[in-house]
Amino acid sequence: MANAIRFLSMDAVEKANSGHPGLPMGAADIATVLFSRYLRFDPKNPNWPNRDRFILSAGHGSMLLYSLLYLTGYEDMTLDEIKNFRQLGSKTAGHPEYKHADGIETTTGPLGQGLANSVGFALAERHLNTAYGDDLVDHYTYVLAGDGCLMEGISQEAISLAGHLKLSKLIVFWDDNRITIDGAVSMSDSTDQCARFEASGWHTQRIDGHDPEAIAQAIEAAQASDKPSMIACRTTIGFGAPTRAGTSKAHGSPLGSEEIAGTRKALNWDSEPFVVPSDVLDAWRLAGLNAAKSCKAWQEHFNTIDAETKGEFERRFRGDLPAGFNETIIKYKKKLSAEKPKVATRKSSEMALEVINGVVPDTVGGSADLTGSNNTKTSQTKPLTADDYSGRYIYYGIREHGMAAAINGLALHGGVIPYGGTFLTFSDYARPAMRLASLMHIRSIFVMTHDSIGLGEDGPTHQPVEHLAALRCIPNHYVMRPADAVEAVECWQAALESKDTPSTLALTRQNLPVLRTEHTDENKSARGAYELAGDSDAKVTIFATGSEVEIAMGAFDKLKAAGIAARVVSVPCMELFAKQSEEYQRAIIGKAEVKVAIEAGVRNGWDHLIGSDGIFIGMSTFGASGKIEDLYPHFGITADAAAEAAQKRLAA
Amino acid sequence: MANAIRFLSMDAVEKANSGHPGLPMGAADIATVLFSRYLRFDPKNPNWPNRDRFILSAGHGSMLLYSLLYLTGYEDMTLDEIKNFRQLGSKTAGHPEYKHADGIETTTGPLGQGLANSVGFALAERHLNTAYGDDLVDHYTYVLAGDGCLMEGISQEAISLAGHLKLSKLIVFWDDNRITIDGAVSMSDSTDQCARFEASGWHTQRIDGHDPEAIAQAIEAAQASDKPSMIACRTTIGFGAPTRAGTSKAHGSPLGSEEIAGTRKALNWDSEPFVVPSDVLDAWRLAGLNAAKSCKAWQEHFNTIDAETKGEFERRFRGDLPAGFNETIIKYKKKLSAEKPKVATRKSSEMALEVINGVVPDTVGGSADLTGSNNTKTSQTKPLTADDYSGRYIYYGIREHGMAAAINGLALHGGVIPYGGTFLTFSDYARPAMRLASLMHIRSIFVMTHDSIGLGEDGPTHQPVEHLAALRCIPNHYVMRPADAVEAVECWQAALESKDTPSTLALTRQNLPVLRTEHTDENKSARGAYELAGDSDAKVTIFATGSEVEIAMGAFDKLKAAGIAARVVSVPCMELFAKQSEEYQRAIIGKAEVKVAIEAGVRNGWDHLIGSDGIFIGMSTFGASGKIEDLYPHFGITADAAAEAAQKRLAA
Repeated sequence: MANAIRFLSMDAVEKANSGHPGLPMGAADIATVLFSRYLRFDPKNPNWPNRDRFILSAGHGSMLLYSLLYLTGYEDMTLDEIKNFRQLGSKTAGHPEYKHADGIETTTGPLGQGLANSVGFALAERHLNTAYGDDLVDHYTYVLAGDGCLMEGISQEAISLAGHLKLSKLIVFWDDNRITIDGAVSMSDSTDQCARFEASGWHTQRIDGHDPEAIAQAIEAAQASDKPSMIACRTTIGFGAPTRAGTSKAHGSPLGSEEIAGTRKALNWDSEPFVVPSDVLDAWRLAGLNAAKSCKAWQEHFNTIDAETKGEFERRFRGDLPAGFNETIIKYKKKLSAEKPKVATRKSSEMALEVINGVVPDTVGGSADLTGSNNTKTSQTKPLTADDYSGRYIYYGIREHGMAAAINGLALHGGVIPYGGTFLTFSDYARPAMRLASLMHIRSIFVMTHDSIGLGEDGPTHQPVEHLAALRCIPNHYVMRPADAVEAVECWQAALESKDTPSTLALTRQNLPVLRTEHTDENKSARGAYELAGDSDAKVTIFATGSEVEIAMGAFDKLKAAGIAARVVSVPCMELFAKQSEEYQRAIIGKAEVKVAIEAGVRNGWDHLIGSDGIFIGMSTFGASGKIEDLYPHFGITADAAAEAAQKRLAA
Repeated sequence: MANAIRFLSMDAVEKANSGHPGLPMGAADIATVLFSRYLRFDPKNPNWPNRDRFILSAGHGSMLLYSLLYLTGYEDMTLDEIKNFRQLGSKTAGHPEYKHADGIETTTGPLGQGLANSVGFALAERHLNTAYGDDLVDHYTYVLAGDGCLMEGISQEAISLAGHLKLSKLIVFWDDNRITIDGAVSMSDSTDQCARFEASGWHTQRIDGHDPEAIAQAIEAAQASDKPSMIACRTTIGFGAPTRAGTSKAHGSPLGSEEIAGTRKALNWDSEPFVVPSDVLDAWRLAGLNAAKSCKAWQEHFNTIDAETKGEFERRFRGDLPAGFNETIIKYKKKLSAEKPKVATRKSSEMALEVINGVVPDTVGGSADLTGSNNTKTSQTKPLTADDYSGRYIYYGIREHGMAAAINGLALHGGVIPYGGTFLTFSDYARPAMRLASLMHIRSIFVMTHDSIGLGEDGPTHQPVEHLAALRCIPNHYVMRPADAVEAVECWQAALESKDTPSTLALTRQNLPVLRTEHTDENKSARGAYELAGDSDAKVTIFATGSEVEIAMGAFDKLKAAGIAARVVSVPCMELFAKQSEEYQRAIIGKAEVKVAIEAGVRNGWDHLIGSDGIFIGMSTFGASGKIEDLYPHFGITADAAAEAAQKRLAA
């Protein structure tokens, strides 16, 4: 059965003239034992909530996964798709792409990400288990990781977090083939991986990755352990290839017809390319049917439970928000506009979360060791610990990257809505995972506080300058920067309602007044930009975000005092604004003679609104260590500077 | 003596009403033993090349370092600077900023970076030792790291690389205080750090971090080991503070007058704030003088060596390029313009490096396990290994972040010019270190190949779309994207000549023709943008970078055939262009009615050149897996599309 994977993989790579045959050939035995004997899944119900998850962290070995999906009978993974491996429009992309085909649990390829996602999967599983019991949620998360995954730093964050939280249903196969692209692993690493995992509380085993019984025994031992488990599987990359097996030449390029012919001979495989002998295919399809039995049993049980639990379970896995959510938000907004709390938006965010977490049981929060700074914890979110997985707050430790990837895993698992915080400047640490959230179209929510030089004395290493602009470059990512407490809750609402786009909330350390003193039921922030103040005959339009909207209002007042009609447009989210009708966008951008933008960051991305001749009041260098009261004037980001620049331009 | 550090630190934090007293108070004993008994340095010659390096990876404990610099007699670290801790314009920024004051070896604060820099420092030391011998280069690199440094993933990349390369002169003190911002370390981590380090080939010890003799013995044992060494120092954060010691409250905020008074009592310290008793200060100054003896001996020896070695050593530490470098480049460019090799720019880069590495012995290359793809290795750069540090090529393994930080460390050490490669999309993994290179104004060179959808079948995880734009957002960073073999070597020249700004070279996988067929001695790419083709009466100007310049030339030809005068401007580096005279910029941007930009990335940042109404031919979504021949037309990035759009606009 394993050879079916090998030949489908090498034939597909050969036909595409591109791809990675080495891993599928080397890991075929591991995958075969797992999929035919242990993994609980149903090719006909690929989204069964309680399925075991299989995550191919070594995503370049995508043909392993595609082969398994085809062989076990996933309907959308046809032989034609396999034959169209790596072609434009096929479901069989070079690396597994989430949502391209059923059975792909997450997008992998950037190394280490799948392994780090798996922590989120395993967390979601244990957390939901506490709410729904063993009958509804009780499954394993299996990972296949390569040397690359384990060398990437993110793996350490994932491993140490999983070990700390004793995620015993997480089982990682390490494809220990001793080969990387540059050659032998020994050229670049000497780590004793088992010892390393053990140092973080993992159960480890070393086995021959080509011995089915050893694989089976190891899986059973891993299942029995009360720790997360790593199985070091000694394999031969490109197993079966007469001259390339065990070398880096097997890793990432087609084997060539001669080598493939040699492999056919060596493995006694007579079939033509893409033909799986019927007895072998039957065995695989039977494995798929056997695996599906557990799904049927689960479904039968599910049908017997009470309607309320069932409805809530289904709602959570659909990703819908609870009924009445919008009304709760409106009521809260009304209160804010009346009470006008002058607080930092990180605090506004906490206040919004206090409301949200009270009505949305799906949320699971956390922070990368900045809980008190990110304001991500509310009264409802007790710590999630190894002793109590029912908690809704994760102390992620100083692991921004691992946190972001775990958040992706939580979102991908379903049933929970994850968010987590760090400082905006450290979005750089989390960026590869944030990108994948965007690419996968999932609802990961990143809470990024201390969003400008306004954080003050910590200085340029901690002051984001380019981060808003740089995050806005990522396709399908909402970068939200609320200006006050009302916008803060509106942004949270928009983020929660956005099932297909992740969001980053950029929040201040410093206090800001409420500018939205007049209540509207409408979520104005969800339009991305809107007029906050001004008249239609304005000669100057000032665009601003977050903490700089207050400065824009100051400039507006100064211009007004000088007899100049002006407008202020708050821009909480450029990406949402770009989704509005052209008419709306034109109206908001307006036709004022002078356009000014104020944002304590770099100009990149602003010309779209103000034109390349527009006035930009912001940063062009890194920040500095000092008091906020000194820094804003030092960098020329003041109401005076904005008003003066506008007046000067008008007079020119 | 240690108490002098404690009180200067808590007093400075108190006066600033901001900062981190916990670490300086906890680690004062370690630092005192190190600085007064082991560290070889000279406060009067802070840039002595063979000084021991001390890297405060836990940068939030900056007052520890500032105190040490003041106490040991660095002239620019005055008591006034200490009193102005964290104030705008002071040398004593919230986190240690490279170049702000002597004795600050690297900018730290983003956790784990200093530790990862230290691998570069230690590598530079061993490498230069092979060239210059024990008499000229033979020093230790000491690091003080906290729990945060060790939890960050980058630490694993640093640790495993250092262990593999047996960097035995690297000695890390782990400030094992069991406290993070959120509370006890046990809330988020259970890792046995010694076991973890040992798994990667480190020598480890556990000591009482407040016992001077234990600290001294541990340092000597670490020095004697043939492995890199980690000393786990059990300390009490905020040591001496009556109620806050040992708690997270000591970490990151002023202690308050009452607590400070209690600490004075507990530690028998009668002096006023900022006053160090004269006997204590004398002892510290004497320590500084003692430490400087080794510098004097070194200098005496240095004066005896031959003029050539001396001159070359001095040149390398000044960071100058060898005489004749420019002539070599010009000669090579002439050859390229004549021979017109149609190769990928990653290959052009390799060819350029073959020339450069032949005449610049300072270069130390490498790749994060993509040597054959990044084309970073040349005939001169033999592998640098644990057995032979004379090599000039580092197999960094699958460690993009660790590589970038090590590159920073190599650059900071001096005497070498480091570069290293990965795929452009994985610049995201390296980004925090790339940002620090920009902030520190150092010559780190990042080689980023596979720079667009042009890489083809690997698909959207591997295809950079937002990366050029996002890197351009970082202040003081040259993002270079050469269009052909000539521009490739020109970009390399500009990167090497840029002592104060790091560079990223974005390079193609696909072949490109030579467009610069007419030789000029001038480095045109160093101007950032220049006219490649066209007339002054052009109605259309097409701007493009890298692989899209060929497409721009195709569009130019089509327009010409249609009787429309056009220009093509190649833009190898926007940041260098922004440094040209306004006149030059105006002339290059020109006044053509229609402006078009072509880049297989997102639009962000382009409006500056083409205006917000300019035509942009590029990407607005993630890429896709497929053949390059299919992808460019699929995403509408073709000469036809550009020419048609321009014609349509002209007709409108």
